[in-house]
Amino acid sequence: MTDRNNPASGEDSLIARYFRPLATDPGAFDLGDDAAILKAHGEDIVVTTDAIVEGVHFLPDDPPDTVARKALRVNLSDLAAKGAIPAGFVLTLALRSADEAWLTPFARGLGEDATHFGCPLLGGDTVSTPGPLMISVTAFGRVPPGAMVHRSGAKPGDRVVVTGTIGDATLGLAILRGRAAAAGLGDDAAAKELLVRRYRVPQPRNALAKVVRHHAHAAMDVSDGLAGDLAKLCAASGVSAIIDAASIPLSAAAATLLARGTAGIETVVSGGDDYEILCTIPEAGFEAFVREAGIAGVAVTSIGTIIAGTSVPKFLDAQGREIPLPRLSYSHF
Amino acid sequence: MTDRNNPASGEDSLIARYFRPLATDPGAFDLGDDAAILKAHGEDIVVTTDAIVEGVHFLPDDPPDTVARKALRVNLSDLAAKGAIPAGFVLTLALRSADEAWLTPFARGLGEDATHFGCPLLGGDTVSTPGPLMISVTAFGRVPPGAMVHRSGAKPGDRVVVTGTIGDATLGLAILRGRAAAAGLGDDAAAKELLVRRYRVPQPRNALAKVVRHHAHAAMDVSDGLAGDLAKLCAASGVSAIIDAASIPLSAAAATLLARGTAGIETVVSGGDDYEILCTIPEAGFEAFVREAGIAGVAVTSIGTIIAGTSVPKFLDAQGREIPLPRLSYSHF
Repeated sequence: MTDRNNPASGEDSLIARYFRPLATDPGAFDLGDDAAILKAHGEDIVVTTDAIVEGVHFLPDDPPDTVARKALRVNLSDLAAKGAIPAGFVLTLALRSADEAWLTPFARGLGEDATHFGCPLLGGDTVSTPGPLMISVTAFGRVPPGAMVHRSGAKPGDRVVVTGTIGDATLGLAILRGRAAAAGLGDDAAAKELLVRRYRVPQPRNALAKVVRHHAHAAMDVSDGLAGDLAKLCAASGVSAIIDAASIPLSAAAATLLARGTAGIETVVSGGDDYEILCTIPEAGFEAFVREAGIAGVAVTSIGTIIAGTSVPKFLDAQGREIPLPRLSYSHF
Repeated sequence: MTDRNNPASGEDSLIARYFRPLATDPGAFDLGDDAAILKAHGEDIVVTTDAIVEGVHFLPDDPPDTVARKALRVNLSDLAAKGAIPAGFVLTLALRSADEAWLTPFARGLGEDATHFGCPLLGGDTVSTPGPLMISVTAFGRVPPGAMVHRSGAKPGDRVVVTGTIGDATLGLAILRGRAAAAGLGDDAAAKELLVRRYRVPQPRNALAKVVRHHAHAAMDVSDGLAGDLAKLCAASGVSAIIDAASIPLSAAAATLLARGTAGIETVVSGGDDYEILCTIPEAGFEAFVREAGIAGVAVTSIGTIIAGTSVPKFLDAQGREIPLPRLSYSHF
């Protein structure tokens, strides 16, 4: 309902109060118009969109600031993998109610990340829903014309490289759900907290975007699971791959769970929610890639090789035996 | 679940089957990558985002093709009001299940509109939800640098103009909900169908975009209700307005309901879902505006005048008395 003497509706007040401070780009017009302006400056605009749904991508009792960060970061991760520099984002927020106790930390977390990653809020839509919360973000980045890194450029002989560590987020989710993974860490609260944090707040590798753009034949972010996403990259490129499972980078907490047998390697490579960059680097450029990644402060690990062929990539154990993977990745349907 | 020998997940298959045919722009990369490319060609990119939620913006038994059209058209309407030419859109679709009987007509309706309005699908995200269906669209348009039409440019003396007819959609919704409006039309099935159709499938005025850009001091689309949206435009411009309610353009069906007293003018001006353009035109350019609108094939009607002041716009009846409006527009919160 709109007050007769105050044209600002509840929705407008909500936007002004919580989100206007995040709209620092002049093209956002202080969220006071119906649309935003994005300047291209002669570059290509890279567009990506990803939504997160309560009960599917985050849990109802996840802290609101981590929900906001995850909503933005899963999109920033796509921009990073495509070699793009963030330019801004729009937000659709479906809420059951305008709950101040939830919106205040949500907007604070979102604003801190927008500033940190140089990705200002450009606009959005706030709607009511009787169902689960949903946050849909469309993010924009810039690359020099024609320079976006595709899934489809991998060549036989390329190194297969991932950033960071793999499997933490899916183990963190298992801990939040009270599954066996929790028991495997005994009373090591710090290790559990690290894994949970990796589930709730991905670390997009935007610091590596330019390095990826300069060196990678192909790249994508690992969101649904390393095995499935590598299979997609290989299919798009018309190649296959051999992965040395023992070389997949693991956090100490994940390594502990694997060593104790609480979790298996198949969980690590098919669990998803990693938001690390998966890319293929030609052998001739690998040394320079590693050096530049070091300067950018992002850990990179070679885990295998692209080969000719069209079969699904093989994950081999330390004895060279293929690891059976009953599922490759998470799928919504 | 992903088949071991088929890296395409259910989600990927769904996208390939229903949505790849809509991705006709080369920048969409056949929906086979993680991001799209939008070329600016030296123009400004106009960005707008609007979501529709089942049970809030559309009804559970609305035909799927009309749900798709509405999701895209509410965004096209924003582009039209900003004077922008459509360039493409991204789609977030939250579904309870991958129901072929629903997705087939949804994708067909979406594809027909994408073609008709020259606004191809660039990318998207399909997620599962346990709750209501939700469709979030972010749409892009192009305007010459600096030429986007704002809410904030209205000047005293400008004519207040709307396109099409006002109030049909809210009366159509009342009919769908079995309210009194249905009775007011007796057994005139065609009139009822027209109003329902106006609720389900807005008619965005993209044909008028260039004319608005050339003539309007200020513009926005009427989505939440004429009274509330005009109040927002006036507040953004630091002006007020006087509206002659008798000159507000009505369809024959809406006029019949008003004449019979089944619906009041306050419902018409505060009901929302019109998706017509509201703009202000300087008197000196009004004749040319009307002529060019005629060439574009879009009906335009002058309904009042912008005046100095900061009070909420007044709607006057045929006797010059102010019409009390207990609420100005729809608000989600």
